[in-house]
Amino acid sequence: MDLLKQRIQTDGLILNNSLLKVDSFLNQQIDPELMMKIGEEFVRRFKDEKITKILTIESSGIAVSVMTGLILKVPVIFARKRKPKVTGDDVYTAKVYSYTKGESNTIMISKQFLQPEDNVLIIDDFLANGEAAAGLANIVEQAKAKLVGIGIVIEKSFQPGAQKLTAAGYRVESLARIKAFTNGQVEFL
Amino acid sequence: MDLLKQRIQTDGLILNNSLLKVDSFLNQQIDPELMMKIGEEFVRRFKDEKITKILTIESSGIAVSVMTGLILKVPVIFARKRKPKVTGDDVYTAKVYSYTKGESNTIMISKQFLQPEDNVLIIDDFLANGEAAAGLANIVEQAKAKLVGIGIVIEKSFQPGAQKLTAAGYRVESLARIKAFTNGQVEFL
Repeated sequence: MDLLKQRIQTDGLILNNSLLKVDSFLNQQIDPELMMKIGEEFVRRFKDEKITKILTIESSGIAVSVMTGLILKVPVIFARKRKPKVTGDDVYTAKVYSYTKGESNTIMISKQFLQPEDNVLIIDDFLANGEAAAGLANIVEQAKAKLVGIGIVIEKSFQPGAQKLTAAGYRVESLARIKAFTNGQVEFL
Repeated sequence: MDLLKQRIQTDGLILNNSLLKVDSFLNQQIDPELMMKIGEEFVRRFKDEKITKILTIESSGIAVSVMTGLILKVPVIFARKRKPKVTGDDVYTAKVYSYTKGESNTIMISKQFLQPEDNVLIIDDFLANGEAAAGLANIVEQAKAKLVGIGIVIEKSFQPGAQKLTAAGYRVESLARIKAFTNGQVEFL
């Protein structure tokens, strides 16, 4: 998605030649019009799936998910992150390790919001090691719903997430795929 | 806003005659079309203000904020909640106590996203004790920006938040104002 790639190149900040910060349009300041364009692109890529629900994770996945949901007229559900303590028979949970933060969280979704007849599109802002997306996919499987695919805004293709998810049989659609950071510049695949 | 009040009455769950759960359209599952209608209503109420930026707090304020920002074509910034530890010269912070969780969080916004010339609309999902909104207002003041008002989806009018914020000179616009929970029913003001 060219518009997104251009935005990453003009407004993204590369720290230590390894970390990309896109706080100015995605992760702290959000550009709603860009989020809508991204939503339109996800709808285009998954147009043949009869999506009934979008699943994401707080917080940065929410904006682009609600735009996608607005176009498709389907609900969005977002998993909450908690320190591992909450359980209960009424929630699906999955454990997600964050390499960035060096800690594990339990993500959870109330069982009432996912049914076996749902066709679920997972959406998230970043894909690096794939822990969050794998946790969300695990929850979809617990609910016996159908996972139609995983839509990612920015994929760091030099980290193993995309490969792991594809190997597990999931369809991954990433709108910007980063091959490397070279001399402070983003190189796309 | 009648559509919202009806939705609260049909889909809201009242626990212990004191807590309202609206997980099915606002706090875990999100109805994007309702969020857009709410955004339109905020735009209508604040139409005479030249809003340049919307400020909210993760996670449940994000969906309605991005819809409002989409209509107004202005950026949304969301404060993050952290345990009190993060500081730094490049962020505005405010301390926010959560009565629900019985803990304090430091909310923060990168200084680069708020300028003295900004006209800021604060948006949040719930207003009860007013701690989050007051913290956001404090950050707007630190940035020397203009706070044009506070837009709230659901106000618990029997708690002191709205009164405190109004007494502090802020314009508060709440789309559903709850007077009381009576016999398991929501009574609006």
